[in-house]
Amino acid sequence: MKRIVKAAALVGVVALLASPLAAKKVKWKLAETWPSTLTPLASPPLKLAQYVKEMSDGKFIIKVEGKEKHKAPLGILDMVKGGQYQMGHSGSYYWKGKDINTVWFTTVPFGMTPSEQYAWFYYGNGMKYMKEVYDKFGVMNFPGGNTGNQMGGWFRKEINSVDDLKGLKMRIPGLAGEVLAKLGVNVTNIPAGELYTSLDRGTIDALEWVGPGMDIKMGFHKVAPYYYTGWHEPASEMQFLVNKKAYNKLPDNFKAILVTAMKAAAFDMYVENFAESVKAWDKMKKDFPNIKVKHFPKPVIGAMRKAATEVYESYAAKNPKFKEIYEDYTSYMKKARAWSQMMQGGYLNLDK
Amino acid sequence: MKRIVKAAALVGVVALLASPLAAKKVKWKLAETWPSTLTPLASPPLKLAQYVKEMSDGKFIIKVEGKEKHKAPLGILDMVKGGQYQMGHSGSYYWKGKDINTVWFTTVPFGMTPSEQYAWFYYGNGMKYMKEVYDKFGVMNFPGGNTGNQMGGWFRKEINSVDDLKGLKMRIPGLAGEVLAKLGVNVTNIPAGELYTSLDRGTIDALEWVGPGMDIKMGFHKVAPYYYTGWHEPASEMQFLVNKKAYNKLPDNFKAILVTAMKAAAFDMYVENFAESVKAWDKMKKDFPNIKVKHFPKPVIGAMRKAATEVYESYAAKNPKFKEIYEDYTSYMKKARAWSQMMQGGYLNLDK
Repeated sequence: MKRIVKAAALVGVVALLASPLAAKKVKWKLAETWPSTLTPLASPPLKLAQYVKEMSDGKFIIKVEGKEKHKAPLGILDMVKGGQYQMGHSGSYYWKGKDINTVWFTTVPFGMTPSEQYAWFYYGNGMKYMKEVYDKFGVMNFPGGNTGNQMGGWFRKEINSVDDLKGLKMRIPGLAGEVLAKLGVNVTNIPAGELYTSLDRGTIDALEWVGPGMDIKMGFHKVAPYYYTGWHEPASEMQFLVNKKAYNKLPDNFKAILVTAMKAAAFDMYVENFAESVKAWDKMKKDFPNIKVKHFPKPVIGAMRKAATEVYESYAAKNPKFKEIYEDYTSYMKKARAWSQMMQGGYLNLDK
Repeated sequence: MKRIVKAAALVGVVALLASPLAAKKVKWKLAETWPSTLTPLASPPLKLAQYVKEMSDGKFIIKVEGKEKHKAPLGILDMVKGGQYQMGHSGSYYWKGKDINTVWFTTVPFGMTPSEQYAWFYYGNGMKYMKEVYDKFGVMNFPGGNTGNQMGGWFRKEINSVDDLKGLKMRIPGLAGEVLAKLGVNVTNIPAGELYTSLDRGTIDALEWVGPGMDIKMGFHKVAPYYYTGWHEPASEMQFLVNKKAYNKLPDNFKAILVTAMKAAAFDMYVENFAESVKAWDKMKKDFPNIKVKHFPKPVIGAMRKAATEVYESYAAKNPKFKEIYEDYTSYMKKARAWSQMMQGGYLNLDK
């Protein structure tokens, strides 16, 4: 009898130890494109690590390493694919050299706003396409925080017509650079550390960076007083990358903890970035009243939009998956924009 | 030696059983103001229950009960306070009879947009005030999903001037009703089931409901073809309510699981509701092209805004906490609106 009780107790213990909750500690590493102090971009991985640790009672630990540690800011996808890191935090459009379709999961020129894009991700076909594009890398990809609409950049001279763009030397990367090149802009890329000097000396006439919070620190307003509003990155979404093999080895409750924590951390960054921008915009207007904030004139926007369509159509002609996503994205955006303009735009214009 | 090993094993087992993760199951109940099928309003509690169950490996269960079960849609705060339910899902402004300051955590006429309000909640003083207002009930309160800007309502006749509002019989509850009453509107409340008939027979001339998705199902467009855009509920945030004593009894990891799951579920509803509105707006325009969508004329908006300020100032004169929150809210909104109008509004107006 005593022996039976003991045996039963042992079975209980073994069952308890074998259950996922009693599993031994999971320790992961996450590499991010940013320096680990560059908030709000660097906030989602830190929040993720905190949420996961607390929710797993300290049994699932994610160690976050910034670019100052791994020295490979644009090597995140490769490192997560190869398994050196179980996770990454970066921007999908950095991988457009590997697959042009990665651009759809960050933002595109004249693309959706953050609310529209989240609706497309979760209630349209966005997450389905994200999975299709990233499956071949053995990597899972999740939204990782949004910067909202970025500013269109700093210009030494005012832009009054499409002609003013011709021959202009501008630092503007990615698809937006391809769009402006079609309008005669001389598009260059220059490392961050040399941007101010290049603008000051006239090596370039204009540049695009991020938004008021990060731009003012760089001092661009001192040498290029025209600050144009954005058209080229209306809803830059960051990304979490997860090595699929590592994910599949997690117990089910850790999988759920990871996915829910990523969603909460991404939402946190959207709000944090908005709040930071509010503060920076208010401070900028008070401290630097001479900055001339401008919207591009309608004919210039029209020409940029036409050039953007040509860029999209040229990729679509070469790449059937691009064509498929482009059509789905455009059709969703058309419906969503009607609602945004009536509802959000209408409210912001109430007194106008 | 054998005895020592056995004793050590027993200590280990006892330690494991005493740890929070090995704690016995937690079973909670949540009461919501809505019928349990009324998505997207009813989505956050269902998502919450699912996330919490998965993340706790089935050890923390939340049973959701809709108003069809508990029959007390406006008794949620009392039931959570009294402990009959550990949680609730409702709207903060339903408790304005208990404390007028609860209105600040849903939305107010001419108030903040969803992005602005989330920034105020999490990076301004919003959550601090929410805690101060709800502490006396022994209840914790968390954001619980957002409907975005609601529509301004259905009118049998076009509103061309402030005079057209005088004597108008309208169903519009809450602070917005107090605002319109100042402009001569005869404000009434009518149960949902009688709204269509009242509008059809001319018992009322106008009513406010929610937005395209839920309004069209009620058939209002058949008898009141003027559909005005919103000014009175620009960012209706739902709320999760949690009984503080029940929360304090949870192990730390379950507390973290609950809080993170509420945040993810609230964000989910904001996106779901936006996506549903996109679909409903598109369908409405195709199926019912005769609905006349209108913005109120500028002088009407101006008069409503003036009346709203009078309503706020009258509460502020009687209630010091109202005055404090009103001033903080207004000052945050002013800064946030400058950024919203430039960044979100500017983008939506690019072609205008």
